[in-house]
Amino acid sequence: MEAPNYAGLRALLVNCSLTPDAETSHTGRLLDVVDHLMSGAGVEVDRLHLVEHQIAPGVQPDMREHGWDHDDWPDLWPRVEAADILVIGTPLWLGEESSVCRVLIERLYAMSAMLNERGQSIYYGKVGGAVITGNEDGVKHTSMSLLFAMQHLGLVIPPQADCGWLGEIGPGPSYGDPREGKPPVGFDNDFTRRNATIMSWNLMHTAHLLKEAGGLPTYGNDRNALADGELFGYAEPRAVPGT
Amino acid sequence: MEAPNYAGLRALLVNCSLTPDAETSHTGRLLDVVDHLMSGAGVEVDRLHLVEHQIAPGVQPDMREHGWDHDDWPDLWPRVEAADILVIGTPLWLGEESSVCRVLIERLYAMSAMLNERGQSIYYGKVGGAVITGNEDGVKHTSMSLLFAMQHLGLVIPPQADCGWLGEIGPGPSYGDPREGKPPVGFDNDFTRRNATIMSWNLMHTAHLLKEAGGLPTYGNDRNALADGELFGYAEPRAVPGT
Amino acid sequence: MEAPNYAGLRALLVNCSLTPDAETSHTGRLLDVVDHLMSGAGVEVDRLHLVEHQIAPGVQPDMREHGWDHDDWPDLWPRVEAADILVIGTPLWLGEESSVCRVLIERLYAMSAMLNERGQSIYYGKVGGAVITGNEDGVKHTSMSLLFAMQHLGLVIPPQADCGWLGEIGPGPSYGDPREGKPPVGFDNDFTRRNATIMSWNLMHTAHLLKEAGGLPTYGNDRNALADGELFGYAEPRAVPGT
Amino acid sequence: MEAPNYAGLRALLVNCSLTPDAETSHTGRLLDVVDHLMSGAGVEVDRLHLVEHQIAPGVQPDMREHGWDHDDWPDLWPRVEAADILVIGTPLWLGEESSVCRVLIERLYAMSAMLNERGQSIYYGKVGGAVITGNEDGVKHTSMSLLFAMQHLGLVIPPQADCGWLGEIGPGPSYGDPREGKPPVGFDNDFTRRNATIMSWNLMHTAHLLKEAGGLPTYGNDRNALADGELFGYAEPRAVPGT
Repeated sequence: MEAPNYAGLRALLVNCSLTPDAETSHTGRLLDVVDHLMSGAGVEVDRLHLVEHQIAPGVQPDMREHGWDHDDWPDLWPRVEAADILVIGTPLWLGEESSVCRVLIERLYAMSAMLNERGQSIYYGKVGGAVITGNEDGVKHTSMSLLFAMQHLGLVIPPQADCGWLGEIGPGPSYGDPREGKPPVGFDNDFTRRNATIMSWNLMHTAHLLKEAGGLPTYGNDRNALADGELFGYAEPRAVPGT
Repeated sequence: MEAPNYAGLRALLVNCSLTPDAETSHTGRLLDVVDHLMSGAGVEVDRLHLVEHQIAPGVQPDMREHGWDHDDWPDLWPRVEAADILVIGTPLWLGEESSVCRVLIERLYAMSAMLNERGQSIYYGKVGGAVITGNEDGVKHTSMSLLFAMQHLGLVIPPQADCGWLGEIGPGPSYGDPREGKPPVGFDNDFTRRNATIMSWNLMHTAHLLKEAGGLPTYGNDRNALADGELFGYAEPRAVPGT
Repeated sequence: MEAPNYAGLRALLVNCSLTPDAETSHTGRLLDVVDHLMSGAGVEVDRLHLVEHQIAPGVQPDMREHGWDHDDWPDLWPRVEAADILVIGTPLWLGEESSVCRVLIERLYAMSAMLNERGQSIYYGKVGGAVITGNEDGVKHTSMSLLFAMQHLGLVIPPQADCGWLGEIGPGPSYGDPREGKPPVGFDNDFTRRNATIMSWNLMHTAHLLKEAGGLPTYGNDRNALADGELFGYAEPRAVPGT
Repeated sequence: MEAPNYAGLRALLVNCSLTPDAETSHTGRLLDVVDHLMSGAGVEVDRLHLVEHQIAPGVQPDMREHGWDHDDWPDLWPRVEAADILVIGTPLWLGEESSVCRVLIERLYAMSAMLNERGQSIYYGKVGGAVITGNEDGVKHTSMSLLFAMQHLGLVIPPQADCGWLGEIGPGPSYGDPREGKPPVGFDNDFTRRNATIMSWNLMHTAHLLKEAGGLPTYGNDRNALADGELFGYAEPRAVPGT
């Protein structure tokens, strides 16, 4: 089969690792796989190691206007806005995404009042995926939360839009840790390899499809029209019979 | 604005209520809203009140071959297979979807070895949404679980693909319960009305887009090719530096 | 150290496996570990393989009064009521507990209007734990749901009250599957062994402590008094300053 | 009924609000209810508004040793260690706890290698509860995560150890917002009032019970003995019959 060329698409891969040094992030390694696949298809890939930036927690576009001395988010936002594809990568702690990842979700949510030029949520036209690694347990739980948040904001979630690596239950090594006489941890896991491949291509296919179509039609989701009382065909159902 | 016509699309709305009588299901009322919007756009809408059928729990296509006397699932499956749009409706109990809803998820999962004629998961080309009602608390939690399961199986999740109604925390009335001198419970909730409208249209827009495109390209997600070892550009990342 | 003797305590271990044959349930094997530890301490252990029984879904004490022909729950309830320790065992499907497990939660919830002779929830004085196995991913997510449900109903959750086994991410063998030249799958996992041990003993210690104390004092949780308007010291806080 | 006196117990109420000003936190108001009930019973109550402190994300006891310039956690830890009762309060954003709350969980987890003088987890002997407010949806979901984390660390979770307030689905006012001619938002909600009362008393009853008993017996949970290979009665189950 010939690989599609998706030049013209842009992807932002955000690593929500707690590790200050991007070079030693395990989650970063699986994001490298996504990066390689997308770059190879002509996609312009932007990488963001979030913990290198000083982002205030909160749900406003610029937290410097709400009591914080410093906030890098307003400077980072244009990189989110420019992306057709948003991939959120996170490690797992106690079965949940990192606190850095929750800061990201809060700040994405903070922009949700913005509309595109067609009156839709600013996130319409983008697609989203999740990359999660841990030494054990929690990819599905965390994907539930991240994919939910992204679709709620307005991104499309393609089929099988998450991937990850986990070892057997209990303490243990992490994705990409070197091993003597064997490939690094997780690199020989077919499930992880295939899901990373499927996710990356489905994100690109779906972003391309959306872009070619000029985004979703506005009928039913034009927030200005909804605010003006347009019903788009909505009708009240019957009441449930009283008891 | 002129409403799009989506004749040719088919939708299956599954109600996972615990109420044997479909007429008195509160969740069924919000599914009525979706039904009305989709039918009005020319979509052929099929309704399924799951608890009326005797479906065995399990993760095999036909549980009669695995120790159960009776199983209606094989007779219901063609209705799922025919649908371009799948909407799962569920009530909330202790903050979770109903047991009937989990039977549905198990049985959808049971078919996940099936491929379409292009080697993709049988669910590729479909889009999914969730409709949830409760007297309090749990729409987001349950949407996380249902939308995750659907994207994992291969459905596309459009933007803002869930809707629901919840009252203030604590025991209280349910969606559609009649009230004296006021609209039935929840019918005057703008958030519920708009989200049901947005969800319904986005499901139709996205299903139409996918159908017009002939589904997603197979590059990267063709399971026969993946099983044969095709890598689709996958390359191993570097190891994390040892410590 | 000398092992405590907990003769006089009763435990109910419920297996929510989808496997009709209890002998081939993987989750059942980890429940065997709990059974052995508790029986060895003198606890009277009752085992229930739920899928062998025909339990109607629903949230009423007896679903035969609500449209169902058959319902084994009323006959099973005395076994729950007699237990000082309740352990819920479940397999994982798509990262969630089984549908059979959700039927159990619904029916436990169905009894939550019952009070003990002191006016407390019928579940006060009991302690709860969770045993979860899957071939991959989901022990923590499912423990969250099961332990939450149990504490919500009125059980005490001791420290580290869950245990389980999971393999590396992706399809694979299950707990207890035989292997050539090695112990059965998961039996050599220290984390699983220790957590099963810790959980079992903490359930017994806590149940014993509660029983010796005659249950929790009723001050603040006597539902008859609360229904009569007793405040138990509750006072309204100040309002948040208006903006 | 006469209220018990629990002088000698200490409680730490942590507010994970995103609001820099503790005075305007809605979650803080429901924590005030808990504070009043516990103080009234003689408990020494310590309050912590976490966002006032500069706590590094991470899973180590002191992040200054891991690349961070500043970390207030080591100075705050003695207040956690001194508490018999730990209550975590959080607002809801996109149905999840705040990022500040996840920083707290990470840093509590960072201390989990510490043992008490009896070889048990440092958190043994403490009890935990959760207080959650939002304008809509998510108390149960977030309680699942917080109570799970606390029991995993070694705290006991008493019956009905969470409380919260939520309004009807959609944007709306928050707990404690002033209203003309009516009590502030949520103050007239019986469910919230009762659950706050029940939770507060059950936390005190259970902490008292544990303290009187000198904590849980160490049999089965002594981590030094477990590390030395002590089995505490653990025995391997049979394998699942091969197929």
